[in-house]
Amino acid sequence: MQLLQQTIEAIRPPDATIHQAALQRLADQARPQGSLGILEPLSARLAGIAGTLDVRFRKKMIVTCAGDHGVVAEGVSLFPQEVTAQMVTNFVQGGASVSVLAAHAGAEVRVADLGVNHAFPADLPIFHRKIGRGTANFARQPAMSRAEAVRSVEAGIEIVNELVERESLDLLGTGDMGIGNTTPSSAIIAAFSGLPVRSVTGRGTGIDDAMLANKIRVIEQALALHRPDPSDALDVLAKVGGFEIGGLAGLVIGAAARGIPVLCDGLISTAGALIACELAPAAKAYLFASHNSVEIGHRCMLERMGLTPLLNLDFRLGEGTGAAVAMHLLDAATRVLADIKTFAEVGIRNAQER
Amino acid sequence: MQLLQQTIEAIRPPDATIHQAALQRLADQARPQGSLGILEPLSARLAGIAGTLDVRFRKKMIVTCAGDHGVVAEGVSLFPQEVTAQMVTNFVQGGASVSVLAAHAGAEVRVADLGVNHAFPADLPIFHRKIGRGTANFARQPAMSRAEAVRSVEAGIEIVNELVERESLDLLGTGDMGIGNTTPSSAIIAAFSGLPVRSVTGRGTGIDDAMLANKIRVIEQALALHRPDPSDALDVLAKVGGFEIGGLAGLVIGAAARGIPVLCDGLISTAGALIACELAPAAKAYLFASHNSVEIGHRCMLERMGLTPLLNLDFRLGEGTGAAVAMHLLDAATRVLADIKTFAEVGIRNAQER
Repeated sequence: MQLLQQTIEAIRPPDATIHQAALQRLADQARPQGSLGILEPLSARLAGIAGTLDVRFRKKMIVTCAGDHGVVAEGVSLFPQEVTAQMVTNFVQGGASVSVLAAHAGAEVRVADLGVNHAFPADLPIFHRKIGRGTANFARQPAMSRAEAVRSVEAGIEIVNELVERESLDLLGTGDMGIGNTTPSSAIIAAFSGLPVRSVTGRGTGIDDAMLANKIRVIEQALALHRPDPSDALDVLAKVGGFEIGGLAGLVIGAAARGIPVLCDGLISTAGALIACELAPAAKAYLFASHNSVEIGHRCMLERMGLTPLLNLDFRLGEGTGAAVAMHLLDAATRVLADIKTFAEVGIRNAQER
Repeated sequence: MQLLQQTIEAIRPPDATIHQAALQRLADQARPQGSLGILEPLSARLAGIAGTLDVRFRKKMIVTCAGDHGVVAEGVSLFPQEVTAQMVTNFVQGGASVSVLAAHAGAEVRVADLGVNHAFPADLPIFHRKIGRGTANFARQPAMSRAEAVRSVEAGIEIVNELVERESLDLLGTGDMGIGNTTPSSAIIAAFSGLPVRSVTGRGTGIDDAMLANKIRVIEQALALHRPDPSDALDVLAKVGGFEIGGLAGLVIGAAARGIPVLCDGLISTAGALIACELAPAAKAYLFASHNSVEIGHRCMLERMGLTPLLNLDFRLGEGTGAAVAMHLLDAATRVLADIKTFAEVGIRNAQER
């Protein structure tokens, strides 16, 4: 708990002076004001975070957190639990969707085992941070203890600290892998928002109407059974969350404390980001929503955090795939701010100053 | 007219067999079916065009067509006409918005003078294809003759042919520069669609309510005066178009005839693409809409062509800026198709085949 508390307290706001200077430079550039739309405020936020008008993301990483879920015993997912471990191997071998899209974005993928129900070889090049071999089935009992919830978040913080200290890190994307993990994610947003479960629960990997109805019922019953306290994010995480979701929350808090911008991916990554922002509202200033997932609970999470997604790709995959695609937009925004010349620099009179 | 007709007749449909094989590979990949949203059909279209499942855009270019507009005499724009020529110089020097975003996309920018009201030095490294020193003021007389309309479209075709033959070209983006050119663009979509002018006319570089009302009135009166024939795209182009808009139409037709995918940018580029598709409906198969412009007429154009924009960036700049940003998505789509492993390749059982 000490690491979590210290890290939350270490989060500082971005540099408001640089942010303001960025907005001024954008307004002075040789083009109609506001004409580069969403890239303008995006570039100014990134400048404020980096403390410079010439931001360069030299080292970009996606950390994909994996974990298993006891609630799959209730038949909420199309895929068997073994696939979580198989996909971890696929990530390491570079043939998965996030591997391909991260490579295209010039980013590295690192995988973290927060709680996969499989014993990976110790020399597998992943972060070995297993809290348990899958959560308990939260249809019957809390997914994890409060102590485990804290440890999962702290594991995410430690991963960021390790990446920053042993290598370097300029831009972090978050991703997830865990068969069944849209179920805890929908439960989390339902717990915080009080919205009806059916309005925040989607089809995950593609379940049919009967399985969807069952998934909704499982979440409703779990919320009624455990009554997670929406003012206590660790209680929500412990009762209806997941180990990788705790890790994802820790990544956001850790990155914010280090002054590193962090792009969250789809429903599960954003559930982690939501836990992070409930624990540490100051982290929001470092958080960017990469895309708008097909999963209906995702939009509610983003609204709660006041984030506008950068892309609408109709993705519903996770792994960090949306974060990988959005990295190009963040890079583009940094070039817009730094490299487009002002009216004065190119010797054209600015019609808008007449 | 001969070049235009020959080029239209040279357009062949993409390879349907490869398109189908691409859809099958996407369905077999180790991830839930359809989970990569818009990148999936995009990648299959690109494969059909290229005739291979492993598409590589080695040479990407944005051709920015510039021209001036006599209708600026009616006070439809915030910026003076001289800015068109100044921005051409800015493009060549690499400090403009499209220069910066194209560089980030790994694309080169080429500028074409289709009708700027300025005599550029002959050694300026641009395509010198001036049809006239700006169009006539279409509030009083047709913007250009029918012969000039044909020559402007053929100039665009010749530019593509030259790029393909002298260098190489795998992916083309289109862009525009021309003070006042949202006015002919809105006139063009109003002429084809019959929609009320006010429903397809926006604020361009940022004009106020009074200037917008005047702009709408100018377009309405021009359409009433010239009665362009919506079944005759060259008549529409000649009466209320622009030289660079003709050039942009030629780029699309030329690229389609060469089997090269072409990304259109915002309102003006898309007005050119619309002229192209009215002249040569087969060109649509090679056309991609990069983004959804703030300009309200843009959406109507895309709907008429049956195109869905890839990005929503709130851009309203032109130059090819949106096309530059979208190139990354096309590149990403090609990697998705070629590089993500199938369930069989990674040895995971596909739950969806149960």
